[in-house]
Amino acid sequence: MYFNDDHMKIKDLRVHSIALADPPLRSSYGLHAPYALRTIIELESEDGIIGINETYGGEVPAAALRAIREKIIGVDAYRLTGVLNPDMKNRKRPGLDRSQTYLVPGENPSDEASRTYAALEVACLDLIGRATGTPVCDLIGGRVRDKVSFSAYPFYKHAGGGGEGSDRREDEYGEALTPEALVLQVKKMISRYGFGSVKFKGGVLDPDLEIETVKLMYQEFGPGVPLRIDPNSAWTVETSVRVGKALSVELSNGGYLEDPTAGINNMASVRKQLKAMNIDTPLASNVAVTCFADIPPSVASDAVQIILCDHHYWGGMRQVQHLAKLAETFNIGLSMHSNSHLGISLMAMAHVAAATPHLTYACDTHYPWQSEKDEVVAGGKIPIQGGCVTVPEKPGLGVDLDYDQLERGKSRYKNVPYKKRDDEAEMRKHVDANWKRVLPRW
Amino acid sequence: MYFNDDHMKIKDLRVHSIALADPPLRSSYGLHAPYALRTIIELESEDGIIGINETYGGEVPAAALRAIREKIIGVDAYRLTGVLNPDMKNRKRPGLDRSQTYLVPGENPSDEASRTYAALEVACLDLIGRATGTPVCDLIGGRVRDKVSFSAYPFYKHAGGGGEGSDRREDEYGEALTPEALVLQVKKMISRYGFGSVKFKGGVLDPDLEIETVKLMYQEFGPGVPLRIDPNSAWTVETSVRVGKALSVELSNGGYLEDPTAGINNMASVRKQLKAMNIDTPLASNVAVTCFADIPPSVASDAVQIILCDHHYWGGMRQVQHLAKLAETFNIGLSMHSNSHLGISLMAMAHVAAATPHLTYACDTHYPWQSEKDEVVAGGKIPIQGGCVTVPEKPGLGVDLDYDQLERGKSRYKNVPYKKRDDEAEMRKHVDANWKRVLPRW
Repeated sequence: MYFNDDHMKIKDLRVHSIALADPPLRSSYGLHAPYALRTIIELESEDGIIGINETYGGEVPAAALRAIREKIIGVDAYRLTGVLNPDMKNRKRPGLDRSQTYLVPGENPSDEASRTYAALEVACLDLIGRATGTPVCDLIGGRVRDKVSFSAYPFYKHAGGGGEGSDRREDEYGEALTPEALVLQVKKMISRYGFGSVKFKGGVLDPDLEIETVKLMYQEFGPGVPLRIDPNSAWTVETSVRVGKALSVELSNGGYLEDPTAGINNMASVRKQLKAMNIDTPLASNVAVTCFADIPPSVASDAVQIILCDHHYWGGMRQVQHLAKLAETFNIGLSMHSNSHLGISLMAMAHVAAATPHLTYACDTHYPWQSEKDEVVAGGKIPIQGGCVTVPEKPGLGVDLDYDQLERGKSRYKNVPYKKRDDEAEMRKHVDANWKRVLPRW
Repeated sequence: MYFNDDHMKIKDLRVHSIALADPPLRSSYGLHAPYALRTIIELESEDGIIGINETYGGEVPAAALRAIREKIIGVDAYRLTGVLNPDMKNRKRPGLDRSQTYLVPGENPSDEASRTYAALEVACLDLIGRATGTPVCDLIGGRVRDKVSFSAYPFYKHAGGGGEGSDRREDEYGEALTPEALVLQVKKMISRYGFGSVKFKGGVLDPDLEIETVKLMYQEFGPGVPLRIDPNSAWTVETSVRVGKALSVELSNGGYLEDPTAGINNMASVRKQLKAMNIDTPLASNVAVTCFADIPPSVASDAVQIILCDHHYWGGMRQVQHLAKLAETFNIGLSMHSNSHLGISLMAMAHVAAATPHLTYACDTHYPWQSEKDEVVAGGKIPIQGGCVTVPEKPGLGVDLDYDQLERGKSRYKNVPYKKRDDEAEMRKHVDANWKRVLPRW
């Protein structure tokens, strides 16, 4: 049996910029705009099979994908690595401590090659999966679990469900700017999706109020529901240690303290001071450690005990699997990071999670914040039940594009003024005309 | 498009023990027996496609494969990981320094699960490749090179080409028990195969004679041909440092000093002493570091600068890819280990090497020591030209079984008394009735 050179050759790459309504969520970055941005890609083979994927939105990621188009036309989908080897060791980085701390996720210039490669890798895997009748997770080594756990992801938020003018979405959760309102939000999420753990976005209110919020959650849900808080580097080392101490009980039992402060050195210092107090709450990160080059200094200083992987910027699914083995080897936990996303990314996250034995925590997802009205997956939003996404038996990612919905997302993108995420600008517009992201703030 | 449950289901596993003639090669383990042992496996799917592979020989590995047969019948070849997750973190190991130092490769009990998984993983990949028309290297991420470099692998040896009685093989290289004879052997290998580097098996003669051998090679081939010496842990730390110093020029230029002494602590001590003399010859290992659990202590003590991977015992091709990324991350070089093997293993080594970006040295191979008469691959021995194996474009591993040759190998296995590699016994039989493997010897 011999095969010719056209076996699974890429004929076309189509890049679609879309906008989706997003509620006014708060974080240390500022305020989510009324629309989040995503890019949907289609990769078509010579025999007309179409692989799809979803990645970061706005002009920059779409331009990077378009720029690489000529290079991948004619390439065998199975041989992407040889053409676009994600050479992360050659990434030029201004300094380890820069990392993603000061940047909106998805727009770190030093990650661009990895993000572009990842976007295409997943589309290739979807294409191969459709052509061979195989789910993506099985193409990359085989599922080790049939369900992937996700966490509830509560945010402090203003009133509103996202969208503008006549395109406003229903505000399912209402305003939540106090500890009590936040706990109500989590209760609603848990009752709707059955989440078994909570990742709470902090770095918004005074640390004492955020401590109170976590304590209220712990009172409400008990030690059976692991709690995490992620202030996105909003705190000094001193504040981080103070919060870690105040929440030493609440963040144990499978929880963690995520990126309390900026950079590997500060994280290591927080860890050291907590350990000296016999507090073993692990520190997690998706900003101090965002690429393989960050790992040796982090290991050497015990800065980060849990890495949040994300195939979108770590260079794809196989790079996440490498990361997981590395983490297992060095006794580092592995969780998963999320940005605002739709169902294609959710399924890609579920597939890579399914094929990664050493995934030790429930994954993050913003998915419950997105509206059915914006979903581009045929059949509407993917169910999360018992806190889990079921790993599909269908070929590829297991989801198809709804082309009408895609057109609506594209036309929304054309009509809205947002072409780049800018949470600071939104804060200035709606909350405080002089607001700036200051790290550390407290 | 939906697929049923029978997609790529495994219907049968057949395990064939074979013997192949092997010349009387010497190492610190002793003397190679007249026959080396291998296991050939066939994995047949419901639709009659057969994936093949080659692994360690003799009774123990074959029994481990037969023992797992019931567990994998009915499994989807794409989903092997979920069924036989190579859980290397749970390996029971008597102590890090035991490693493979005192054991014949392929018979370390703590590696058994990894070896068995690897044998099946590669057969599954061959099966999937044949079913989908895809070369194995492209199934696991895609080739990053079209040719894979191998090193010449000279040994001190006695006269004889392997085999016994009327089944003797031609002695292509003759006796080589002096520095001069060893260099002649290398010249012959290079002229026949075009190797661009030399991995020389030491630990056999007095270290001063082995130093002389390397110096003679360097005189003969010059700095353009990287040289390595591997005494299989035969030396003390002191002797290792002495040899490293004596060969500081000859082992630079892309060469290395492989497992001069036993265990991570001793290796670290050799490294430290050489560095103190400004000698930066890297230390390589396939006995001090043989599994992921060995890596953290090795990294912490800078014991090993180059790891020799081997999909046969590291848990398969994907685990080797994980290892490579880990090595790249920690600035560790990657080379590849070999045991006596035939063409199926050679092709599997070439495929994993082709799909591993961070492979920084030419691979080892015993293949030139094996005879065409013993090859089980249809069409005879795989060519090595310019020191390289060409990565095939054919589906799967790219080689088919010659069933007549397989039958000859099986009947040879039945008729010879060797059922387990025992290089000490061979030494006692042919060289020195009282010989024992003593580490360190010098």
